[in-house]
Amino acid sequence: MHYRLVVEYDGTALHGWQIQPDARTVQGELEAAVARVFGAPTRVAAAGRTDAGVHATGQVACFHAPRVLAPDVVCRALNAHTGEDLNVCAADVVDDAFDPRRHARSRRYVYRLWTRRTPSPFWRRYAWHVPMPLDAAAMARAAAQVVGEHDFTSFRAAGCDAAHPVRRVLRSMLEVDGSLVRYEIEATAFLRHMVRNVVGTLVEVGLGRRADDLSPLLAARDRAQAAATAPAGGLCLVEVRY
Amino acid sequence: MHYRLVVEYDGTALHGWQIQPDARTVQGELEAAVARVFGAPTRVAAAGRTDAGVHATGQVACFHAPRVLAPDVVCRALNAHTGEDLNVCAADVVDDAFDPRRHARSRRYVYRLWTRRTPSPFWRRYAWHVPMPLDAAAMARAAAQVVGEHDFTSFRAAGCDAAHPVRRVLRSMLEVDGSLVRYEIEATAFLRHMVRNVVGTLVEVGLGRRADDLSPLLAARDRAQAAATAPAGGLCLVEVRY
Repeated sequence: MHYRLVVEYDGTALHGWQIQPDARTVQGELEAAVARVFGAPTRVAAAGRTDAGVHATGQVACFHAPRVLAPDVVCRALNAHTGEDLNVCAADVVDDAFDPRRHARSRRYVYRLWTRRTPSPFWRRYAWHVPMPLDAAAMARAAAQVVGEHDFTSFRAAGCDAAHPVRRVLRSMLEVDGSLVRYEIEATAFLRHMVRNVVGTLVEVGLGRRADDLSPLLAARDRAQAAATAPAGGLCLVEVRY
Repeated sequence: MHYRLVVEYDGTALHGWQIQPDARTVQGELEAAVARVFGAPTRVAAAGRTDAGVHATGQVACFHAPRVLAPDVVCRALNAHTGEDLNVCAADVVDDAFDPRRHARSRRYVYRLWTRRTPSPFWRRYAWHVPMPLDAAAMARAAAQVVGEHDFTSFRAAGCDAAHPVRRVLRSMLEVDGSLVRYEIEATAFLRHMVRNVVGTLVEVGLGRRADDLSPLLAARDRAQAAATAPAGGLCLVEVRY
């Protein structure tokens, strides 16, 4: 039986998705829970391999179970074996051929910035503290320019194992709610650190350190011309569409 | 110079407002910071002495400083000496006679409930997880009944040191936002555990275990007839008005 899970996690104390021998990871936690519930070691695959410190409210994971259990029971049983910072929201049965990564049509991420001068005890784990006034209108203009199909080499981390650097961005928008700035980006797929590199660059635009026209930067295909990677804690994988 | 502070804190790792010898408390943290900044031990008073685990976004605190510093400098200097879970948002200079507790005209609290069947990694510290469907309309009707001046003995904790049990509630309302239920209550002042006891009772109404007419309960003036105290983590002091 092939199960699909929707998984939420507070990434603060997790070393990313991918299993590691001596660190708590999302995959490690899920595989250990599946092993306890089904009594056999089983590989769990994800739609997106989030980095250390990145959060998720809509990660999708899949595994093939040696026994049949009602999805509802799977959900409850797995949650009995995971930490408080990781929760299986839903489970359903899918076709054996279903691949959460290759079959995803798009991923949606949210990145949060906290812009008040003083840090927030409540947002410290979930937003990047930029204690300076940001020009949100300039950031929104820059954000809009990444929509469409582009070569994102300028925003691609070293060590990215993607076959090519072209991605189609379906949505890229900025919302301001008091001291909180919420950036949302949806794309068919992402390169390594792409969202955090775009956000780092948008913040430089918001600080007036960079022009709001990102087309020369996209055209340059040069990682060195974009800004430093924004911190992991502001990022959250909110939805994977199929 | 008499300073007034607006203070925010994530109460999860704090043992409430009141200073204690071997525990981290809000008052303890602030007094230690004031002592470091001004070079002399100084008492810090609060508008509301929140319990262990209770949060605040708008606590008001006051102290008399032996030296004169610009409010802006006070704010920054204090924050350099407090933990990440506590933040001084603002500081100003007030009259020497100003008393944050006695001069407050009202306090506003928010209590959050998380009602999805599975717990939330993100709301686990800031909301009470009640994994059952709640009748929000019945809860709202019950909530409306505490507005006005009442004898709140039924919602008063043992050990409450208030002179009398009558309080005037100015606002008591419920909002539902997906799995999150947000209850807001404003009163001239509160008895010990009063908000959490009201919330415990509202949840019993929402679960259909209690009628939505709270007037007999108020009239009974009997703590034993109200529900158990709701957990501290769902509660947040959001504003003190003067």
